[in-house]
Amino acid sequence: MRILVVNPNTTASLTETIAASARQAASTGTEIIAVTSAMGPASIEGYYDEAFAVPGLLAAIAEGERNGADAAVIACFDDTGLDAARAMAAIPVIGICEAALSLAAFIAQRFTVVTTLDRSRVPLEWLVQRYGMAARCKVRAADIPVLSLEDPASGAAARLRGEIGLALDQDRAEAIVLGCAGMADMARELQAEFAVPVIDGVSSAVRQAESLVSLGLTTSKRGAYATPLAKPYEGMLKFFAPKGGEA
Amino acid sequence: MRILVVNPNTTASLTETIAASARQAASTGTEIIAVTSAMGPASIEGYYDEAFAVPGLLAAIAEGERNGADAAVIACFDDTGLDAARAMAAIPVIGICEAALSLAAFIAQRFTVVTTLDRSRVPLEWLVQRYGMAARCKVRAADIPVLSLEDPASGAAARLRGEIGLALDQDRAEAIVLGCAGMADMARELQAEFAVPVIDGVSSAVRQAESLVSLGLTTSKRGAYATPLAKPYEGMLKFFAPKGGEA
Amino acid sequence: MRILVVNPNTTASLTETIAASARQAASTGTEIIAVTSAMGPASIEGYYDEAFAVPGLLAAIAEGERNGADAAVIACFDDTGLDAARAMAAIPVIGICEAALSLAAFIAQRFTVVTTLDRSRVPLEWLVQRYGMAARCKVRAADIPVLSLEDPASGAAARLRGEIGLALDQDRAEAIVLGCAGMADMARELQAEFAVPVIDGVSSAVRQAESLVSLGLTTSKRGAYATPLAKPYEGMLKFFAPKGGEA
Amino acid sequence: MRILVVNPNTTASLTETIAASARQAASTGTEIIAVTSAMGPASIEGYYDEAFAVPGLLAAIAEGERNGADAAVIACFDDTGLDAARAMAAIPVIGICEAALSLAAFIAQRFTVVTTLDRSRVPLEWLVQRYGMAARCKVRAADIPVLSLEDPASGAAARLRGEIGLALDQDRAEAIVLGCAGMADMARELQAEFAVPVIDGVSSAVRQAESLVSLGLTTSKRGAYATPLAKPYEGMLKFFAPKGGEA
Amino acid sequence: MRILVVNPNTTASLTETIAASARQAASTGTEIIAVTSAMGPASIEGYYDEAFAVPGLLAAIAEGERNGADAAVIACFDDTGLDAARAMAAIPVIGICEAALSLAAFIAQRFTVVTTLDRSRVPLEWLVQRYGMAARCKVRAADIPVLSLEDPASGAAARLRGEIGLALDQDRAEAIVLGCAGMADMARELQAEFAVPVIDGVSSAVRQAESLVSLGLTTSKRGAYATPLAKPYEGMLKFFAPKGGEA
Amino acid sequence: MRILVVNPNTTASLTETIAASARQAASTGTEIIAVTSAMGPASIEGYYDEAFAVPGLLAAIAEGERNGADAAVIACFDDTGLDAARAMAAIPVIGICEAALSLAAFIAQRFTVVTTLDRSRVPLEWLVQRYGMAARCKVRAADIPVLSLEDPASGAAARLRGEIGLALDQDRAEAIVLGCAGMADMARELQAEFAVPVIDGVSSAVRQAESLVSLGLTTSKRGAYATPLAKPYEGMLKFFAPKGGEA
Repeated sequence: MRILVVNPNTTASLTETIAASARQAASTGTEIIAVTSAMGPASIEGYYDEAFAVPGLLAAIAEGERNGADAAVIACFDDTGLDAARAMAAIPVIGICEAALSLAAFIAQRFTVVTTLDRSRVPLEWLVQRYGMAARCKVRAADIPVLSLEDPASGAAARLRGEIGLALDQDRAEAIVLGCAGMADMARELQAEFAVPVIDGVSSAVRQAESLVSLGLTTSKRGAYATPLAKPYEGMLKFFAPKGGEA
Repeated sequence: MRILVVNPNTTASLTETIAASARQAASTGTEIIAVTSAMGPASIEGYYDEAFAVPGLLAAIAEGERNGADAAVIACFDDTGLDAARAMAAIPVIGICEAALSLAAFIAQRFTVVTTLDRSRVPLEWLVQRYGMAARCKVRAADIPVLSLEDPASGAAARLRGEIGLALDQDRAEAIVLGCAGMADMARELQAEFAVPVIDGVSSAVRQAESLVSLGLTTSKRGAYATPLAKPYEGMLKFFAPKGGEA
Repeated sequence: MRILVVNPNTTASLTETIAASARQAASTGTEIIAVTSAMGPASIEGYYDEAFAVPGLLAAIAEGERNGADAAVIACFDDTGLDAARAMAAIPVIGICEAALSLAAFIAQRFTVVTTLDRSRVPLEWLVQRYGMAARCKVRAADIPVLSLEDPASGAAARLRGEIGLALDQDRAEAIVLGCAGMADMARELQAEFAVPVIDGVSSAVRQAESLVSLGLTTSKRGAYATPLAKPYEGMLKFFAPKGGEA
Repeated sequence: MRILVVNPNTTASLTETIAASARQAASTGTEIIAVTSAMGPASIEGYYDEAFAVPGLLAAIAEGERNGADAAVIACFDDTGLDAARAMAAIPVIGICEAALSLAAFIAQRFTVVTTLDRSRVPLEWLVQRYGMAARCKVRAADIPVLSLEDPASGAAARLRGEIGLALDQDRAEAIVLGCAGMADMARELQAEFAVPVIDGVSSAVRQAESLVSLGLTTSKRGAYATPLAKPYEGMLKFFAPKGGEA
Repeated sequence: MRILVVNPNTTASLTETIAASARQAASTGTEIIAVTSAMGPASIEGYYDEAFAVPGLLAAIAEGERNGADAAVIACFDDTGLDAARAMAAIPVIGICEAALSLAAFIAQRFTVVTTLDRSRVPLEWLVQRYGMAARCKVRAADIPVLSLEDPASGAAARLRGEIGLALDQDRAEAIVLGCAGMADMARELQAEFAVPVIDGVSSAVRQAESLVSLGLTTSKRGAYATPLAKPYEGMLKFFAPKGGEA
Repeated sequence: MRILVVNPNTTASLTETIAASARQAASTGTEIIAVTSAMGPASIEGYYDEAFAVPGLLAAIAEGERNGADAAVIACFDDTGLDAARAMAAIPVIGICEAALSLAAFIAQRFTVVTTLDRSRVPLEWLVQRYGMAARCKVRAADIPVLSLEDPASGAAARLRGEIGLALDQDRAEAIVLGCAGMADMARELQAEFAVPVIDGVSSAVRQAESLVSLGLTTSKRGAYATPLAKPYEGMLKFFAPKGGEA
């Protein structure tokens, strides 16, 4: 089985962290194809960056699907472009936020997402609500830029630990969800340190993608995710114009 | 006052319908600047089209803001790119779905959105939920492609009337919300015909934009809509990279 | 256009503050007719006062409608008697709470209402829930009687500022809604001071009323707001008995 | 123990039906004092009537409390004036809608309220939501005016039976709640006929009132139901002005 | 009337506290039959204990029903086995949590349950949500084992008082619900001490059971509480196998 | 890896269907240990059966854990005893309802559970609500006893197909979830037949259990699922008494 993991941030070093986590999570026999989006923001921090990450992300998923990927993972915690990707692709597509929350819900009744900057907090609260977890899950921001996670001198890890401590104390969290793909490599260490489950979205999503593929399940094309209708697109995005599908 | 109205569908004839409705709704002294997005889908029908409409839409809003617009209206009923636009712009930005629902809520306790294709129904149901109207508002699709609204021979108007009839009977709707910018010119006629309020989003949004401007209100830059942080963007969308703002 | 603004508190000095805010918000060509209710409580503080403000309020709206008003605004933040007024009148009726929340929702994702006494907090929380904003909006009371807002020596302004500070810190509010008609004159000053949007309900409601009138929209008489049926009323309120309408 | 039962409709014959149901429900040793409101609408059908029923209702409760009632029941299914009555009175006050729903919830997981006119349906849906039963309880109207329940020739009983049948079939209701005080005498007969529990609000409220009194429980005066503050009232309602209480 | 009160904790001394509260609450003419479950945990603290309390509880209710009880009360605040008991029995069955919340809702708009150990907090939060009170009711744990309530030297009463104080301060509770059957004897004293209503579930449930019986209401056998179908059970629980009922 | 799959129905033939589905779903290297509960009902149909299935289920999980299972699956669609099992076991425990819903949510926005008897519909609706899917997922019953699924002459398969057809038509379901472990072998065939995703809970739960184990995640022992406290149990269930754990 081949799982495509797309980093919609255009920073290749971040893709390495993501790929390592994905490979560690994958089953024997699963090939992880990790790609960095070729167009869009260096890091996704808030709604504006998110919007511009989508075309590059969709291009990467379309290419991956043409090259034989069995499923795709979107490796950014705001589940960037997830609905569009599902409408476009025949293969299943998984977001790392939805994947992490789904596993957290199996092992804890109350949990907290700790993300990077405050501007991402409210967007994640909406995701939590949409995924039906609002009564169980809070969201906190540790005030750390995404790319600072790659810089040991940034103090990001310390701030993340501080916020996890607050989640346990004030939210009475029973588990912690790491709210950024760039934190993927820290889950096991933090789990040992805080003695509660710590869930990383990248590895969660790889496993969920494997599960769908192995069970023969893929996105329903009835209703919200119907194949895009053929029509012209204008301007520099014109080559994204869909070629077909049914009304 | 200058209100920019952006049609994120790249079909200019549709912009004319929108502009006419906007101008009819505007106060004396308000200038409507109606523009057609230069890149993206000819019509927005579902999640995939929506994603590719956003860059062109944001380019149009950014240009409008540079040219002195006091507020912007996004003239597509799925409120395409609304969050990103709010984060980007200093001027207020209004979506036609949120505007129509806000006025409907002042004049009816139960109402129904009638939109075009079934693939847009679920995305609109999510908007209705996010805007806090799920207990009051249902969504129906009349099974009419967006651009068929421009073709008298398409039968679109008859199907729309049929679906309004079902909304009144089965949903016990007290008012009808027209769920597509391309229906903007039909509101007054349908209101007279069905003897219930019929609300068009384009005119609603123009009025809401005027209200914000005249009251000196604009998007809060604290929290979810903080100005995008300066950072590099890769690929053909690189000129969209934000130049600054605070963390 | 003529907009009737009724102060359901029977304190005329409060009406002056309200009228000034209404006139400042109104468009050129809109006439504001501000009236003080002739019967009921000097100030509305809690459920009991609210109940006795309704007959005087409805009398004022009925008279205003007979005299040619195109729309009515109820200038008390608990949206006193709003449903009854809508059922009674043919013209649209707007409450200042619903109007303020509707504008706040266009410019912020999280906001806080700061009201007067604690006894009004829970009633406003129910309004917030009914208007679909419970996930986005908190309510705080600054512990200031309504009429103390008119007395510079009362310390009310200082307490209001203190509570706004707590809303920004603890609720992470992105905007503030002033939860009393008597605060209408403070919005712009507080907005400048706290550097976040500060929304006043009176001016918001005047604009929303103008929008409905100019778009030819009024209360649906199908369903919840059907015209009251003719029937006898007993006792001193007998002249309020409805003369007609359909079942 | 003395339970005051106020009919806020000013139709005395309706009070007799209510009183009979209340007396049948009361425990040995409980005295039912049934009174007809002296001012307001002959029947409460929709928001407008409801507003004008409140002063007479509150006058009746205040008088009953002065005369030694231990609790009060408001015998109209829209729980007319309930919040104001609780703020005013030291004795507990119960609405017949809330009482009926509370008992229904002990014996069925899904149930339907069958009320009179369609204009009362949406107001009752809001009550159902406020009382936390929206996931369990639907509301239907049988299209029968309140006072037609007193006229055997009106066909009201047949229409009520028809609507109960629809509730069982289409809503899969496990129990029926009679949504009007004027139906109080029909509960046992309908229960036998349809072989599901049929709950009447008047008798439910009498029992709930007895329970509170016997357990020494009464309305909290902390928060939303704080005693009204002393202040002047203007106009013909001036004698309702509260004499005291704490801020 | 005979009300069976089952203590599903197998600690007889706790049954005495429960029985005393039940008898004090009962009407003249009501006989309280208080029984201690013969099998299961000494005290119910969390989900695991709860599961093993159910067979003994159901055995006790079945025996009570055979012996002529008119209704049954389950005297444990997590409403242990309530749904199974309702499906099994022809007589009405009431849980003390649901009963306490139903009375609290008549006298306060915001209230807090104070329970024993933290492991019971989340299960009670789910009950509060299921009973439709999540917007009105918070849950706190005082960190006191159930049986410590019987030991004056344990400090349990002091911790309970401390947590009630926090509920009043931080939750702005208007009333307190005691979240354990073992606290039944403390309600009146705490009510006097804190000057807000304090509600005990045991006495609440006795009254609610009396109300149902006296009104001729019992569990609907249509839908969720249909009589269990006849079928074989294996192992040591085989004598619990149902003998009949309809599909 | 060893996954224990417990059939809490005491019908061994049903376990064979479940085991086959589990084995088909399992990864290479995963051993499925399928066991039939030794005590309790032959089939679980409604709340009463469910209660008596729990002790046998927990005994089977405890034994499986002692024998080295890495995770456990509860193979009954009402997620029988799930909370108790999680509190008891150190290994992760997955219910087939929660597992099926979690996968359905990745591939469809609207879906319908089709279960067996109507008495199971409401219990499943509560699960759907608890799992946060109430806005997306409906529940239908095909009116087929659990064990009739094993009898080709029963007509159960035809009724199931009929109900799936209604779900697609009336609920506009985009995917179908099979609401009984006994339907596990029909998923692929029905998926091909109806051309929408059809999700079986048994295979879903096996995959989710594998995912948790492979990622080093297990039930949090902080809060709701804290290890049961040591205490005596009475009667024939006494050997289930917990030996230890922390408060």
